[in-house]
Amino acid sequence: MPETSAEIVAVGSELLLGQHVDTNSAWISSRLAEVGVDVYRHTTVGDNVGRMVEALHQACGRARTVIVTGGLGPTADDLTRVAVARLAGAQLQRHDEIVAYLRDHFRRGGRQMPASNLLQADIPAGARVLEPVGTAPGFAIDVDGSTVWCVPGVPREMTVMVTRDIIPALQRLGAAAATVSRVVRTSGMAESAVDEACAEVTRRLEAMGNPTLAFLASRGETRVRLTAKAADREAALALLDPLVDELVEVLGANVVGLDDEGVEWAVARQLRRLALTLAVAESVTGGGVGARLVTVPGASDWFAGSLVTYATEAKMRLAGVDPSLLESCGPVSQATAVALAEGARARLAADVGLSVVGVAGPTTQGGQPVGLTWVATALPDGSSEASSRRLPARSRPDVQEFAVSMALDFLRRQLAELS
Amino acid sequence: MPETSAEIVAVGSELLLGQHVDTNSAWISSRLAEVGVDVYRHTTVGDNVGRMVEALHQACGRARTVIVTGGLGPTADDLTRVAVARLAGAQLQRHDEIVAYLRDHFRRGGRQMPASNLLQADIPAGARVLEPVGTAPGFAIDVDGSTVWCVPGVPREMTVMVTRDIIPALQRLGAAAATVSRVVRTSGMAESAVDEACAEVTRRLEAMGNPTLAFLASRGETRVRLTAKAADREAALALLDPLVDELVEVLGANVVGLDDEGVEWAVARQLRRLALTLAVAESVTGGGVGARLVTVPGASDWFAGSLVTYATEAKMRLAGVDPSLLESCGPVSQATAVALAEGARARLAADVGLSVVGVAGPTTQGGQPVGLTWVATALPDGSSEASSRRLPARSRPDVQEFAVSMALDFLRRQLAELS
Repeated sequence: MPETSAEIVAVGSELLLGQHVDTNSAWISSRLAEVGVDVYRHTTVGDNVGRMVEALHQACGRARTVIVTGGLGPTADDLTRVAVARLAGAQLQRHDEIVAYLRDHFRRGGRQMPASNLLQADIPAGARVLEPVGTAPGFAIDVDGSTVWCVPGVPREMTVMVTRDIIPALQRLGAAAATVSRVVRTSGMAESAVDEACAEVTRRLEAMGNPTLAFLASRGETRVRLTAKAADREAALALLDPLVDELVEVLGANVVGLDDEGVEWAVARQLRRLALTLAVAESVTGGGVGARLVTVPGASDWFAGSLVTYATEAKMRLAGVDPSLLESCGPVSQATAVALAEGARARLAADVGLSVVGVAGPTTQGGQPVGLTWVATALPDGSSEASSRRLPARSRPDVQEFAVSMALDFLRRQLAELS
Repeated sequence: MPETSAEIVAVGSELLLGQHVDTNSAWISSRLAEVGVDVYRHTTVGDNVGRMVEALHQACGRARTVIVTGGLGPTADDLTRVAVARLAGAQLQRHDEIVAYLRDHFRRGGRQMPASNLLQADIPAGARVLEPVGTAPGFAIDVDGSTVWCVPGVPREMTVMVTRDIIPALQRLGAAAATVSRVVRTSGMAESAVDEACAEVTRRLEAMGNPTLAFLASRGETRVRLTAKAADREAALALLDPLVDELVEVLGANVVGLDDEGVEWAVARQLRRLALTLAVAESVTGGGVGARLVTVPGASDWFAGSLVTYATEAKMRLAGVDPSLLESCGPVSQATAVALAEGARARLAADVGLSVVGVAGPTTQGGQPVGLTWVATALPDGSSEASSRRLPARSRPDVQEFAVSMALDFLRRQLAELS
């Protein structure tokens, strides 16, 4: 059994009923890959002590490190503490310092601790406690030569414990290799067109075997993922970074961003570069364009604000759109989109205006089909541009999310041409 | 081994590297639950024949039905055909009719078939072929009394085969029952407090064994899930619906919504009931409150629009907030939140105003800590209310998403008191 092998066990009947998608296992796996730990299996079991013990016993027989997520809450169906105690042949012991922490946690929140939370202070004897993030402490215990790490299923709490406690411990174990990925994100090209544009790089990498390259398509964006294995993260990045530069060159203006940074980061960089401020007018998206923009730290340096002119009346009242224009062209039209972009720019005294109008569904609007979307920009020189597309999304939130991406990508392309 | 037990095995190294989240297993599980098939385990393995055979062998030892997704593509790392042949002790046989289908498939797309696609016509001897949706045929084969179903990992192809081939076959097997869940969503209560409030119902259900009850906590919301097994969907709902009513009664004003409907649906219902229109002023959330509201169909009947006053300047310019008030109290304060709610209500000529201001981070703002959030409402009678909380979220998008929920829940509680 290799020293750096790991398995992940997700616990929760809601996962087996298909009511939740397990995103924890993928997140943990990507962190383990970064420090060179190979994950050979993910297992999901329900809230059943017998089946949990069976799955954990098998996992410990195959891997040195077993990470369990979920089942650490305060309710009767939170059974990870009980199952791991049984697996390890240990008793549950109540930890006074955890009880004190929990009482204090509730007191600070202005509430009294319900009695059931005391269960969260019960930890298998011999386990090392991982400091809670919310109310659930994690713990780690050795079982037959493997270490079983138990962390909450709540992603916000799980990610802290994995980062703070598990990854450093595995690094100390001497996991020497790293698997690192970088991603080039594009929009406005079909997956097969991106594939063809990258053919020369693909051929070269296939001959070498490392790094590897993959194409992933989703709602209007195609991502190219490069993955390298090397002695450590720095060595892997040294293999990847020149390839990222090459792909950015090849894919040109279609590149939206790199790695975790979506089109809103590209817009932010362009506005900073040009020292311009932005105002938005949104209709179909209800505020989604602004919401995406303000996820970028420091947005207040370049984002003035938005007019969410959802009702037709609001388009006139907030953005000063001419009622006769709305009457003749309709709310989902080139003319209205341009008038909104110009109105946002003027009313918020910003350098650039961006607008989006469309039909989110479920029904058509004034004869316009579901998915039809107009975006427009109003630029510092007084000029404006507009573009329309019938988005291929299926549901109302889908159309809205796609329309946000379309508006931001349209703005990105406009800003790229300014100097 | 019960006749109606199933396990799902997802195949793909990209899943174990954490580069993809496995959504197939949850989707298949929810379809199986609908026809009364119990799923006791999900397993994910990489593109490795030995580990695939081991996992499949174990799954066949526990469940009558094993569904494998992934590994049916045309490339060298698509190994499900090989692994299942080895598991069943069968040879791979090339199917001429699949070869003909593939050639025709590529011809219709105007391309020549790459030689590697021939691998997709190799099926273990004795298996029943499932007609391809894209290029990959699925297949089903009996192994030691269990049936192993292999379908592609591409969701669009997988969903067709599961719906067309697997579900009807399981229904013929006599899986006569349905598993149905309903969810009661709450906010403003700790998970353990919800648990305690439901204790009487929990005790009763535990004695009966069906339906079952579970508690799920996530960012400011605790959901109570009731799951019933019965002869069909209608019979299951007949068990669940009175319990849902009972929990709604017990949890009172903390109930946000039922099933898939979040707090924005409750707000929409209240506004319709009261025949009131809403205007929003948002700062920290950048438009996220409006974006959540407009996911509800027909939002234009009650949602006027929002002022996204992100820059301090915009708070004065768009919402008419008094500069001296901003100066003395700061942008994240009760006074500013109330002034924004009143400004939105006035500027958009709406009946109700809602506002949210806060510190999204990553750094503190004017001495205010990250996560501090003020929400306020301005009501038709001219009164206003405000509330603050330091949100326990860790990242900037986390704070923003939590702040959206906090604002909507505050409004929901205010509206519930109007008549």
